[in-house]
Amino acid sequence: MAQSYELFYWPGIQGRGEFVRLALEEAGEDYADVARGPGGIDAMMAALKEGRTPAFAPPFLRADGMTIGQTAAILMFLGERHGLAPQDPAGRLWTHQLQLTIADLVGEAHDTHHPLGASLYYEDQQDEARRRAAEFTAARIPKFLHYFGHVLGEQAFLAGPELTYADLSLFQVLEGLAYAFPKALARALAEHPNLAAFRQRIATRPRIAAYLTSPRRLPFNEQGIFRRYPELDA
Amino acid sequence: MAQSYELFYWPGIQGRGEFVRLALEEAGEDYADVARGPGGIDAMMAALKEGRTPAFAPPFLRADGMTIGQTAAILMFLGERHGLAPQDPAGRLWTHQLQLTIADLVGEAHDTHHPLGASLYYEDQQDEARRRAAEFTAARIPKFLHYFGHVLGEQAFLAGPELTYADLSLFQVLEGLAYAFPKALARALAEHPNLAAFRQRIATRPRIAAYLTSPRRLPFNEQGIFRRYPELDA
Repeated sequence: MAQSYELFYWPGIQGRGEFVRLALEEAGEDYADVARGPGGIDAMMAALKEGRTPAFAPPFLRADGMTIGQTAAILMFLGERHGLAPQDPAGRLWTHQLQLTIADLVGEAHDTHHPLGASLYYEDQQDEARRRAAEFTAARIPKFLHYFGHVLGEQAFLAGPELTYADLSLFQVLEGLAYAFPKALARALAEHPNLAAFRQRIATRPRIAAYLTSPRRLPFNEQGIFRRYPELDA
Repeated sequence: MAQSYELFYWPGIQGRGEFVRLALEEAGEDYADVARGPGGIDAMMAALKEGRTPAFAPPFLRADGMTIGQTAAILMFLGERHGLAPQDPAGRLWTHQLQLTIADLVGEAHDTHHPLGASLYYEDQQDEARRRAAEFTAARIPKFLHYFGHVLGEQAFLAGPELTYADLSLFQVLEGLAYAFPKALARALAEHPNLAAFRQRIATRPRIAAYLTSPRRLPFNEQGIFRRYPELDA
């Protein structure tokens, strides 16, 4: 039988595809990670141009003949299907709002190493990256983590007692920041022990723990969103 | 009677608040633009810290005791309520996917004048802005407009024969690009006459036309997302 979900994303990096993978893994769903298979990149580039609702860029998901692009839209779709979002409309909207704020943080993390745009190598914008990263580590990481720490409070998860896709995404961001900005993250987490505990709570969920040690989980590296450039971690 | 909607956004600029204003105006809804009134900024800063679902940043909307942040989430909420989104789940998801891609373009437009971050003035990152804007005008505007031109095709609106909030947002982006990057936009629109016609189709809708000439519509300026710095419009 064909797998229910086909995920299309650049092979070799976690990137934005990883937020989708974590939701599929937690849901226990089988999926094809198309571009990591033979001929997969060609298949992805062809799929980008097909259909009535083409995605602008990877990641995108094929399910039931639909093509869904944009990480947050994919997660909204999967969250409602697989119990990774609240049942009530207000709770769903709140979960999505949290996801979009996480996406803003992800975008800013990426821009630390590519402030002048994606068409230049990091090595060609290293001085600018250092200036941009200084603001990110000094002001932006603390501001975002203060917000999520406040939202989490004494709850188990961001939206209350039940896990949502936004929790999985925040976990991924914390993992990424721990890889790319270990010093800045440690400072911020020292102010928010509830977020440090939250990170462990997600990492030890059976399906997530199994995934993180599986070959399906790619390691962080210096081609993805979260890159370990020690000179940027002030 | 109190107005049904309270919008909170920085006064003095269109910014991300404008995407929400256009949806409220097209829906014919009355709303308070809180921060533009007396004491409004204090009220907004206080509201940012209140409630169970606080926004990370403006814009946010209060409706029926809910606080909704993140532009795309606000539009999803308003779109379903006021007939500015399709009725079927797949159509709603597609509309939202389009909105998120428009949001990516908005973010990139902003970064042209603040590549090193928002804590420095434009004047202190002017050389970097020129380098970042060169990529934006040469590669990114054409790529995004090619995508939206393809999606629009021969249809009246992005998602089909009926207007959605994503159409209003794309209109706003085209207006903003026309202000900030008139040369680059003219080149791109010459390739996509359907988008030029679309822009006129939205501008001449009765409620939008009335709004655009009302005092509620702030002019574009050099504090907002779309800024006219001729040196960046290559």
